[in-house]
Amino acid sequence: MLEYPAALDRVFHALADPSRRAMVDRLARGPASVSELAEPFDMTLAAVAQHLRVLEDSGVVRTEKVGRVRTCRIEPAALTSAEQWISKRKALWERRLDRLADVLAERNKK
Amino acid sequence: MLEYPAALDRVFHALADPSRRAMVDRLARGPASVSELAEPFDMTLAAVAQHLRVLEDSGVVRTEKVGRVRTCRIEPAALTSAEQWISKRKALWERRLDRLADVLAERNKK
Repeated sequence: MLEYPAALDRVFHALADPSRRAMVDRLARGPASVSELAEPFDMTLAAVAQHLRVLEDSGVVRTEKVGRVRTCRIEPAALTSAEQWISKRKALWERRLDRLADVLAERNKK
Repeated sequence: MLEYPAALDRVFHALADPSRRAMVDRLARGPASVSELAEPFDMTLAAVAQHLRVLEDSGVVRTEKVGRVRTCRIEPAALTSAEQWISKRKALWERRLDRLADVLAERNKK
């Protein structure tokens, strides 16, 4: 898993851009070639390639070249590590609220 | 909710830094004053304040000044929107894998 800080830095950084999130959105529906991925964007292929590199470096997307076509696909483990990082902190926070509610309920009984 | 792009940009950007994640981690355990929050960091108070501003702008953290003490706390809605963005894409991806598995199983039966 990717719990070590630098990997999470890269995953959250990769997701902090709306074009990159749109690419992840597209790839969540299935693998795509680079040109299919680029199609909906009003962007040069070079800009698309740069976003793709950030996504690959983060481990969120994997690409594979077969012949002349590079195919991109989601790598769910990186997304899972980011999701779990958030959900653990939310769980801590909610547990704390529950404990507070217990303390208040206890106090009202007295 | 914060599903609109710029808000998610800010949340993911806020989480892309290990010091800011450490601050969220601390605040998930309960509210803290700015100096309590700064304590474990080998960082100037100005640097802490700057990280805090990024966290506040993203909506992940809320701060409130009472008298001379500024108290920081988690605002879970922003974390939820980031968590949900990720989990929706993962769900799409997994549904697609399930459909593929069905297609393959169907083909093997024939």
